[in-house]
Amino acid sequence: MARWQGGAAERLKEAALGLFQTQGYDGTTVAEIAAAAGVTERTFFRHFTDKREVLFFDQQSFEGTFLNALPASSADPIAAVIAGLGGAAALFGEERRGWSRARQAIIAANPGLQERELLKLSLLAVSLTRELAGRGIDPISAALAAETGVAVFRTTFTTWVAEGETRSFPEIQDEVLERLRALL
Amino acid sequence: MARWQGGAAERLKEAALGLFQTQGYDGTTVAEIAAAAGVTERTFFRHFTDKREVLFFDQQSFEGTFLNALPASSADPIAAVIAGLGGAAALFGEERRGWSRARQAIIAANPGLQERELLKLSLLAVSLTRELAGRGIDPISAALAAETGVAVFRTTFTTWVAEGETRSFPEIQDEVLERLRALL
Repeated sequence: MARWQGGAAERLKEAALGLFQTQGYDGTTVAEIAAAAGVTERTFFRHFTDKREVLFFDQQSFEGTFLNALPASSADPIAAVIAGLGGAAALFGEERRGWSRARQAIIAANPGLQERELLKLSLLAVSLTRELAGRGIDPISAALAAETGVAVFRTTFTTWVAEGETRSFPEIQDEVLERLRALL
Repeated sequence: MARWQGGAAERLKEAALGLFQTQGYDGTTVAEIAAAAGVTERTFFRHFTDKREVLFFDQQSFEGTFLNALPASSADPIAAVIAGLGGAAALFGEERRGWSRARQAIIAANPGLQERELLKLSLLAVSLTRELAGRGIDPISAALAAETGVAVFRTTFTTWVAEGETRSFPEIQDEVLERLRALL
């Protein structure tokens, strides 16, 4: 009964990844994903608006974790963003690297999925900017700190999922931040 | 004969902006744009792959100007990116602000156009990263400097097209860079 562990959305996500890996993203239908997860197509569409979204299931909890880790008040927007990054890093444990690597290979091969991923990261920058501005940071500094935070996350994530990379997510993130400070 | 000045692509771009402003982006067809520019639909599709692209006509020359302004060799990737930004800033003269403001209002109202714009900026970051890496900069520093450059451009552009803003593009860019340095 292992397949019934976790909610339907979680099972759909796992089923989709498996099918995308074996028969390709374009070659997989929603009906096949639903069948592999043991649910109806209607259940699929209760959880996801389209086939792309199944690969971005964890985005909402990622964004929530990031924003919740921002300090309640801060005069230093970069320090606030670094606190957010530190909170979000906890989501990228070693047990998750294989899944993330497989998912990233699927996204890299499909321009539509790349566009969706860019949109998600851009929406994260918008949310972060809003949160920082709500803490009294001026709009230009809030936008720059948010974009910088997203750039650090993106660079860290890309390095973390690279073939052969073994350092932990927080270790890589520290190095990326170090290099950013050295650059400016 | 004023309508025949400039190439067909330029006229299609102007005609499209006018129609998008008066009857909305979704309410305008490619046939209408072509008719307003005095060309056939076939001519439209010789210049643009779809209706969205007509709003991104200047992107290629923007990217070319940015990349051409990078110094031939540089050990300091941020200095190189700032040189690129300086070169690109020359494209955003006062005579262009009205057009940019109108175009931005159309993009802001349409999620599909926003997605396309994000993709264009992301592709610029990819090209910039490649150019910097080609100058011997390590991949993490190259990616960070490129993303930072795009963030500075995006923040400068958003401020420049805001209603009531009167400072020049280079003035705003200098202020954004100043704030970025103060942040880190």
